[in-house]
Amino acid sequence: MDIEVPSTFDERDWARPVDGGPVRFAVIGLGWFGPDVAIPAIEESDYCVTTTVVSGDREKAERVADEKGVDHALTYDDYADGEAADAYDAVYVVTPNGLHLPHVETAADLGKDVLCEKPLEATAERARKCVEVCEEAGVDLMTAYRMQTTNSIRWVRDLVQDGVIGDPVHTRGAFSYNLIAAGEDMDQWRLNPDLAGGGPLMDLGVYPLNTSRFVLDEDPTAVHASTVEGPSEFDGLEQYCAFTMEFPSGVVAECDTGYQVAGDNYFEVGGTHGRIRVDVPFNVDADRKITIRGSGEETVVEPDEPSEMVEEFDYFATGVLTDMDIAPDGEHGLFDMRLTEAIYESGENGGLVDL
Amino acid sequence: MDIEVPSTFDERDWARPVDGGPVRFAVIGLGWFGPDVAIPAIEESDYCVTTTVVSGDREKAERVADEKGVDHALTYDDYADGEAADAYDAVYVVTPNGLHLPHVETAADLGKDVLCEKPLEATAERARKCVEVCEEAGVDLMTAYRMQTTNSIRWVRDLVQDGVIGDPVHTRGAFSYNLIAAGEDMDQWRLNPDLAGGGPLMDLGVYPLNTSRFVLDEDPTAVHASTVEGPSEFDGLEQYCAFTMEFPSGVVAECDTGYQVAGDNYFEVGGTHGRIRVDVPFNVDADRKITIRGSGEETVVEPDEPSEMVEEFDYFATGVLTDMDIAPDGEHGLFDMRLTEAIYESGENGGLVDL
Repeated sequence: MDIEVPSTFDERDWARPVDGGPVRFAVIGLGWFGPDVAIPAIEESDYCVTTTVVSGDREKAERVADEKGVDHALTYDDYADGEAADAYDAVYVVTPNGLHLPHVETAADLGKDVLCEKPLEATAERARKCVEVCEEAGVDLMTAYRMQTTNSIRWVRDLVQDGVIGDPVHTRGAFSYNLIAAGEDMDQWRLNPDLAGGGPLMDLGVYPLNTSRFVLDEDPTAVHASTVEGPSEFDGLEQYCAFTMEFPSGVVAECDTGYQVAGDNYFEVGGTHGRIRVDVPFNVDADRKITIRGSGEETVVEPDEPSEMVEEFDYFATGVLTDMDIAPDGEHGLFDMRLTEAIYESGENGGLVDL
Repeated sequence: MDIEVPSTFDERDWARPVDGGPVRFAVIGLGWFGPDVAIPAIEESDYCVTTTVVSGDREKAERVADEKGVDHALTYDDYADGEAADAYDAVYVVTPNGLHLPHVETAADLGKDVLCEKPLEATAERARKCVEVCEEAGVDLMTAYRMQTTNSIRWVRDLVQDGVIGDPVHTRGAFSYNLIAAGEDMDQWRLNPDLAGGGPLMDLGVYPLNTSRFVLDEDPTAVHASTVEGPSEFDGLEQYCAFTMEFPSGVVAECDTGYQVAGDNYFEVGGTHGRIRVDVPFNVDADRKITIRGSGEETVVEPDEPSEMVEEFDYFATGVLTDMDIAPDGEHGLFDMRLTEAIYESGENGGLVDL
């Protein structure tokens, strides 16, 4: 096993000459992630700028606009009415899952490209509508899977695809934390079935799920799962879900996720001749540790890399401004929604569910 | 989380006064494990002695008897005929899985107690017969699950049962290696469906399977699985198996095992408030590393402990010589065979299989 570890992880293997820009963003949804993570990442990016913020709460929109030096502060209604639409070229949708669709519909109506947070919506049916309206309007739609623009994870995918660990046999991954022990509010939207569309699987489990698809460069054809229903505050949502995905090549992905289990955050690929494990892959801008094992040797890499959110925004902008295809597009995000629905169906009925 | 780490791991929590003994053993099956591991462990034990060795090959039996200073060397036929039966009190059956039953039947006929290697037989039906003949004869039958007499693993079980990581939510474990890359003989009995009863699940996968039952002190009620058939040399046996077990408490066990995947050997329990991971639990007399995580603290223990095979033989002898119940008895081993058959059924048909 001959592994060349890059001295830096700041190379963008997707980079290409970009004309025009910057892509001017309306950031829709002003929970913590939008103002605290996304807007600073846009600020730091090469090809993006925030010109507009949109919230259900006018005061919050104005406060964030003021704090972040953003020109336009809109309510959801203002946005739906097309107010200030000349000020932005694209939208970043970071509302609760079940509210993505109307914002995506408005963007499509206005001819704006869309970067939409994962999962694409709360149900596959609504996710499909997101895809359809964007296709009909001829605007780009990207599902915001950070891992796919995390340079160290892209490197892991290259190692796997280059056969460094032989033929892949399985992936394993988990993303979990104990939301009750953390003292979180039980009234949050992530525990509202209509807004979230599911429990930890929708919020956290999609990380190992999607990263398995990404690293293997293959889509599963069947899933089976065990789900454990949460306490009454979970309103029928699962507190735990273990799911297994079967891929056409014979590779098997074993993942789990929970909201009532001690923190867990890893991803691993086992091949015929070696293993690659990533510790703490899924937190935003985490201190990742990559351990590569094969034939007695062990290589440990602690990548120093740019923020994956900066990479994500510039990747999206490059897709918008050039002829580059966006890999995690709407169809890609929709497939995950079909997967999560199949996982819930299997957890409910106990069978293997074909896709 | 307040963890008291023992200064040594040599305490036998099951120890009690033993009268009589030693238990004189006939070791049946002289592959590498019997002569190289079991006979030295018996030699080192407090309550056991080897008086007899039994092989299909008379010359091998005589050579091993000579090398190990054992009085009696028998063929399988000699043993079946009751030769030298006065020289031993118990048998240790360490032949290929599918040959356990006739040796157990002979032992029961002769009134000898039985320590039988895992898995108990090649099929649940034959395992059930092992249990029945021993019950009818009134002899003890123990299924030789080393992990249950490994003091560090018993300590892990105590930590879990004492609530050190909160309520258990899931276990994970794997035991795998690439038998082809290791250059192993493709004609070995482990790849013979009749003798092995299955692929890596029967040989290796039973370790995380049984250790989950042991540490949780609970038995699963349903399983689902994905199996991947091996190359033609595997004669229809799986090369890979990922299985999920559902326990009545809601705990889920996620395990995998393979013969064509890079080495893998770990066991983990995730609770509501912490995690315990054991690295390299399953190799005999492995250098285990136990990592306990909870609320920001991490405790790493590298236990210095006696050979689990010595512990296993003395545990069995204590069961035979006192009124101590043997925990991994015949019924316990039979349950695992029902589990492995259910796992194969699920892997074949795709459904959740109830037990």
